[in-house]
Amino acid sequence: MQTALKDVLPDQDVPYYQSTGNEQQLFETAWQQHLPLLLKGPTGCGKTRFVSHMAAKLGVPLYTVSCHDDLTAADMTGRYLIKGGETVWVDGPLTRAVRHGGICYLDEVVEARKDVTVVLHPLTDDRRLLPLDRTGELLEAPANFMLVVSYNPGYQNLLKQLKPSTRQRFLAVEFDFPDAETEKAVIMRETGIDVERAALLVRIAGNIRKLTGIDLEEAVSTRLLVYCATLLMANVAFDDAINAAIIEPLSDDADIKSGLREAIGIIRG
Amino acid sequence: MQTALKDVLPDQDVPYYQSTGNEQQLFETAWQQHLPLLLKGPTGCGKTRFVSHMAAKLGVPLYTVSCHDDLTAADMTGRYLIKGGETVWVDGPLTRAVRHGGICYLDEVVEARKDVTVVLHPLTDDRRLLPLDRTGELLEAPANFMLVVSYNPGYQNLLKQLKPSTRQRFLAVEFDFPDAETEKAVIMRETGIDVERAALLVRIAGNIRKLTGIDLEEAVSTRLLVYCATLLMANVAFDDAINAAIIEPLSDDADIKSGLREAIGIIRG
Amino acid sequence: MQTALKDVLPDQDVPYYQSTGNEQQLFETAWQQHLPLLLKGPTGCGKTRFVSHMAAKLGVPLYTVSCHDDLTAADMTGRYLIKGGETVWVDGPLTRAVRHGGICYLDEVVEARKDVTVVLHPLTDDRRLLPLDRTGELLEAPANFMLVVSYNPGYQNLLKQLKPSTRQRFLAVEFDFPDAETEKAVIMRETGIDVERAALLVRIAGNIRKLTGIDLEEAVSTRLLVYCATLLMANVAFDDAINAAIIEPLSDDADIKSGLREAIGIIRG
Amino acid sequence: MQTALKDVLPDQDVPYYQSTGNEQQLFETAWQQHLPLLLKGPTGCGKTRFVSHMAAKLGVPLYTVSCHDDLTAADMTGRYLIKGGETVWVDGPLTRAVRHGGICYLDEVVEARKDVTVVLHPLTDDRRLLPLDRTGELLEAPANFMLVVSYNPGYQNLLKQLKPSTRQRFLAVEFDFPDAETEKAVIMRETGIDVERAALLVRIAGNIRKLTGIDLEEAVSTRLLVYCATLLMANVAFDDAINAAIIEPLSDDADIKSGLREAIGIIRG
Amino acid sequence: MQTALKDVLPDQDVPYYQSTGNEQQLFETAWQQHLPLLLKGPTGCGKTRFVSHMAAKLGVPLYTVSCHDDLTAADMTGRYLIKGGETVWVDGPLTRAVRHGGICYLDEVVEARKDVTVVLHPLTDDRRLLPLDRTGELLEAPANFMLVVSYNPGYQNLLKQLKPSTRQRFLAVEFDFPDAETEKAVIMRETGIDVERAALLVRIAGNIRKLTGIDLEEAVSTRLLVYCATLLMANVAFDDAINAAIIEPLSDDADIKSGLREAIGIIRG
Amino acid sequence: MQTALKDVLPDQDVPYYQSTGNEQQLFETAWQQHLPLLLKGPTGCGKTRFVSHMAAKLGVPLYTVSCHDDLTAADMTGRYLIKGGETVWVDGPLTRAVRHGGICYLDEVVEARKDVTVVLHPLTDDRRLLPLDRTGELLEAPANFMLVVSYNPGYQNLLKQLKPSTRQRFLAVEFDFPDAETEKAVIMRETGIDVERAALLVRIAGNIRKLTGIDLEEAVSTRLLVYCATLLMANVAFDDAINAAIIEPLSDDADIKSGLREAIGIIRG
Repeated sequence: MQTALKDVLPDQDVPYYQSTGNEQQLFETAWQQHLPLLLKGPTGCGKTRFVSHMAAKLGVPLYTVSCHDDLTAADMTGRYLIKGGETVWVDGPLTRAVRHGGICYLDEVVEARKDVTVVLHPLTDDRRLLPLDRTGELLEAPANFMLVVSYNPGYQNLLKQLKPSTRQRFLAVEFDFPDAETEKAVIMRETGIDVERAALLVRIAGNIRKLTGIDLEEAVSTRLLVYCATLLMANVAFDDAINAAIIEPLSDDADIKSGLREAIGIIRG
Repeated sequence: MQTALKDVLPDQDVPYYQSTGNEQQLFETAWQQHLPLLLKGPTGCGKTRFVSHMAAKLGVPLYTVSCHDDLTAADMTGRYLIKGGETVWVDGPLTRAVRHGGICYLDEVVEARKDVTVVLHPLTDDRRLLPLDRTGELLEAPANFMLVVSYNPGYQNLLKQLKPSTRQRFLAVEFDFPDAETEKAVIMRETGIDVERAALLVRIAGNIRKLTGIDLEEAVSTRLLVYCATLLMANVAFDDAINAAIIEPLSDDADIKSGLREAIGIIRG
Repeated sequence: MQTALKDVLPDQDVPYYQSTGNEQQLFETAWQQHLPLLLKGPTGCGKTRFVSHMAAKLGVPLYTVSCHDDLTAADMTGRYLIKGGETVWVDGPLTRAVRHGGICYLDEVVEARKDVTVVLHPLTDDRRLLPLDRTGELLEAPANFMLVVSYNPGYQNLLKQLKPSTRQRFLAVEFDFPDAETEKAVIMRETGIDVERAALLVRIAGNIRKLTGIDLEEAVSTRLLVYCATLLMANVAFDDAINAAIIEPLSDDADIKSGLREAIGIIRG
Repeated sequence: MQTALKDVLPDQDVPYYQSTGNEQQLFETAWQQHLPLLLKGPTGCGKTRFVSHMAAKLGVPLYTVSCHDDLTAADMTGRYLIKGGETVWVDGPLTRAVRHGGICYLDEVVEARKDVTVVLHPLTDDRRLLPLDRTGELLEAPANFMLVVSYNPGYQNLLKQLKPSTRQRFLAVEFDFPDAETEKAVIMRETGIDVERAALLVRIAGNIRKLTGIDLEEAVSTRLLVYCATLLMANVAFDDAINAAIIEPLSDDADIKSGLREAIGIIRG
Repeated sequence: MQTALKDVLPDQDVPYYQSTGNEQQLFETAWQQHLPLLLKGPTGCGKTRFVSHMAAKLGVPLYTVSCHDDLTAADMTGRYLIKGGETVWVDGPLTRAVRHGGICYLDEVVEARKDVTVVLHPLTDDRRLLPLDRTGELLEAPANFMLVVSYNPGYQNLLKQLKPSTRQRFLAVEFDFPDAETEKAVIMRETGIDVERAALLVRIAGNIRKLTGIDLEEAVSTRLLVYCATLLMANVAFDDAINAAIIEPLSDDADIKSGLREAIGIIRG
Repeated sequence: MQTALKDVLPDQDVPYYQSTGNEQQLFETAWQQHLPLLLKGPTGCGKTRFVSHMAAKLGVPLYTVSCHDDLTAADMTGRYLIKGGETVWVDGPLTRAVRHGGICYLDEVVEARKDVTVVLHPLTDDRRLLPLDRTGELLEAPANFMLVVSYNPGYQNLLKQLKPSTRQRFLAVEFDFPDAETEKAVIMRETGIDVERAALLVRIAGNIRKLTGIDLEEAVSTRLLVYCATLLMANVAFDDAINAAIIEPLSDDADIKSGLREAIGIIRG
């Protein structure tokens, strides 16, 4: 059940990804031209899946880092650990990607602490350097290194924004939910559900997404539709499945929840 | 009086749990489909008991973590400790559950620090991975691993909420207090009290729960009713038992407390 | 002058405690039924003395922890210390009480950091467990373990409150100052002062306590009356004793202090 | 130039202290009765000198701790230090006073962190204990131990106050500046200045002190008068001495400073 | 791929830099007169490139530090690290520059923590000293040491400003975007694009820059124009290139983005 | 390039300092009488130079500490460091000055953390002690020790002020910019510039200083005038020199900068 980190990802098959625009061409151009890439879009719209797909297609390892409030530069670059009485340097995921090649993907990069962005700056200059002050090394990124970051513009706040001096170092692509046909295909492929119920779930999602920003902090994701179809395939009753996979994950507010139930009832007819 | 952590829980009998809806079917479906589960509901309504019950029924160890302001990712995944001059890695409860199988239950997950949620993300993706940067391991969760989290929507605040990008990774079930018949049965079973006094306590609880949100921050729990019945069975006078097990635990405000006493007097007739 | 921590307390005589209600019956019932207990009441009203009294009467050691802003879970449970080149685990007071039996008393529990409350949760469940993640132990509290906590509802604030999910795990008793007869007896017993002057001090205290919440943050405690009687017995002049033991400890405000002096002059006649 | 901490103070002569009320009797009674003492009063009014005087008179060492924002309980009680490869426990000043006898004086105690007050609580109970969790010791204070604390009620704020539960553990004495005759004698004794100029300085101070709270945060201290007399004795011109020792130390505001200069000019006539 | 830090930079060719005023003369005078220099200007206007150019031209190593919220004095001066059981001192970039000569460049210096500025003060005095308290050394900067700092006055805030006592220690130069001819030449030189499209991109940038401060936090940089030209040279469609390299990196706001697209459409004609 | 800290300063010549009042007499009296000294005044008015001058004149080493937000008592007094497997105590600059004699100068003392002031208190009492709790030493300052602190009253804020209890321990002197003749002499002496241009720079400074507090946070310092003269002597054009050495270091605001340029143009005539 345990495998070495750097080997695990390129060994696998290319994960399924349904393209929705020119994002593949842009990714490939960025890859060839050694430019860093920024993906913007809502939760669960497929940004992570897209990066996995591209990494597998290009045959390079993928180092994913989910950013958070306490993520520091050292978590990215590495640190000295004491092992068996010896002090050994352990590369962080960014350093591993720079040293051995591969894509380093920082998910929700705006959540990371400020010193992380600074580590990224010299990597996004034309010389693509990663200075490791602690080891005294100055690594130059190889041709098969690429930096990808993402965030969700929907719930940024003033305290957590990418500074313009950082943003302007990236090519940027905006993502959105897949169109109805694509989303239906994804649900059927992932759960084996029939086309009628898949279409119904996509219609329900379309209606809920129109409410986002008014009552709901964020729209229902394709992932939740897949959860819902999974419950239906396990013989959970339709209302129970909708409740557990869509209504309850979206809100704690009794009024909003009954509003959602009503709206879904109308769609079912 | 000391037993190894990982063995203690599955050895025991299945703890008593009175079902109140379809929560058992949903839990079992989530278990079979390898989906993470979110339990929402007020204090003392039985969420923790429910998880213990399901773990024992499924015959798997349960790793419970009560989350709080200072709980970090390292508390969940593990850390290096110096023991007898040697640096040894000690798994945290989440890593133990992933490495050896079992249910990991994070109670009041919104209280944890932000880096904890990030550890949960790759475990709720379809590949169910737990990367341990410090040891260089990438653990894949076995089939008999399940992640369950809970929180109380009643006193969430703006600073402490599950981000939509986290919530939408879970199936969710809402809990409430048991209905009167169920609650009466629980009290009698736990304390041996007679049906009349059990029914009286449940009626009192029903009336107090209607006041919640107006004067009381939270409703009286089944646990407090059990405490009260315990005192009565130990020959504590009725008013003293109500006072020590219900009134004083609910409020410090003299007006609210005398209002509660008055309301209870009316119920007793 | 140095004695081992765990032995010192049960060896001594039962400290004098003048009962003021049913608190002894409730404490004993909680002890027998293995329920945790919460004591509420103002400074210096005798909560700590009551717990000492009960511990000595029950013949079990008492582990008192005065809680504060910087008290963490590790201060309660223990930590690894480096001694003579060896890393040794040193139990904290809570762990000592759980491992060897006894009463663990957390004074002003609302002052402690949030992670402390979490340590208390599994100890207040019916299985009464204390998990020590750092040592990998799961301690089960013996029959002669009891958890007692206290706080002063008079100066709680919004940032420092016991969460309902914690409060509802305790039986609760409210304390107040002793009645005049009891208080007079206490002062005479502790200082050897005559009944007239003891009665005068109690009358003075009664009048000052009526002002609490208006001008004074908190009422004069029995302890201060004992201090005052001690000074009188050491031949300090009456006004000087009142000043040093009552007026100055209660307030820094010149107006309030002269108001108190005037009120006391009237009582003396 | 280096002497052992615990020996230095009792060896010296009793420092000069001019009594201003019954503070010596109260100190001695508190010493005999083993009661802790709280000194309240403005900067530079002689609190520290008073404690030095009493310590020398009683022939016991004095351990002074100037409290501040970052002073923790460990700074008071002690900590483990690594010396020459060995971990050795080093007593803090409070522990030294408890272990070997003496007066421990906490100057400006309200400035200390909250955990310090908690260390003081068991020492102010009738059993006078100092528990050292780190070493596992429970020290009982000897008969010749006394705890003295001080603060300046003039610039307390809401965030930094002694909690009533702490204040009510101390006998309290209020200090103020010495009367004119006493102050004149002090200045002459410390600097050898003639009676006329000493009297003039005291008159100036008296006038400035009436302004305190209106324009000046705090009144001129006896210490500054001594500084001023020292400059005069070193042949600094009168205006320059007043400026350097009184005006500039009291304020940065040009208007206040010229107001003070004018007022002093009138007094000089 | 790994080279020693101090050698890497002077080995390379002089990076291309198109002068826009008297900044080269000022830099050289500052270098000869041993005066520190402050560069002010917006993101991506060429400050960093300018410093690289001057360092290479002067034939001295360049030590660049990107400042951030968590950058401390020790990150600049160095620290003790434990390597192979030995404690060794590792110079930080500032110390390396002072010890061996070279230019130390602090990019976005206002982001650094306050203790960093203090380290700079003695280096900007006429004796140019760097005291290293930890090692007990007092380094005197050699003739070929120079300190350069920069910041962007466009988004300073009240909490993050260079104190006047720091600012007044530097000669200062203001930078702005290059004029149209210069910028066109830069784009053509870096990407090989034809003059027509380069001119169009510069016209687009000129129009967008007029909007800065109204709708856009910061203007489009020359870097983004180069990215855009790179995409065009890789056969990405014009609209897609403008979108990925200019529109999306500048804003997340749908209205602003469509306004920008409209404005660009008009320019293209 | 490396010299031992304690020897470097007294070896040098006495730095040039142009007296502006009775500050030298006051410093010398404070030195003879063992009184601590506080220097108040704006940035760049010569406080630091004055202290260097006096230290050299008195033939004692000078230990300068630039205070900042993160400066702690340990930075002043010293700490244990691990060197070559041994734990050794390393004196901080204050301890070095107390142990070996000399002047310890804390520049911008209000910036330091609160625990620093506390270290200063016993050194400003008449016994002049420095207790080192970590080493168990109690150092008595020798006759040739003096404590000097400074701050700029111009930009103190409420959070960062010297407490009255600290201020009243110092003699205080206020500094201001030198008068026109003195300043002209300084500029000519430092740069060799002719009297006409020196006089012009001083006239410009005089006019700008009248604006301080209205538009400018702080006035132009003598240091900047010296920088400007240095540029002129290096053949930088007058407008460029004024811009780089005066206008840009003083402000980022375009309106203020053009106002300054206009005002300077009028002065030049």
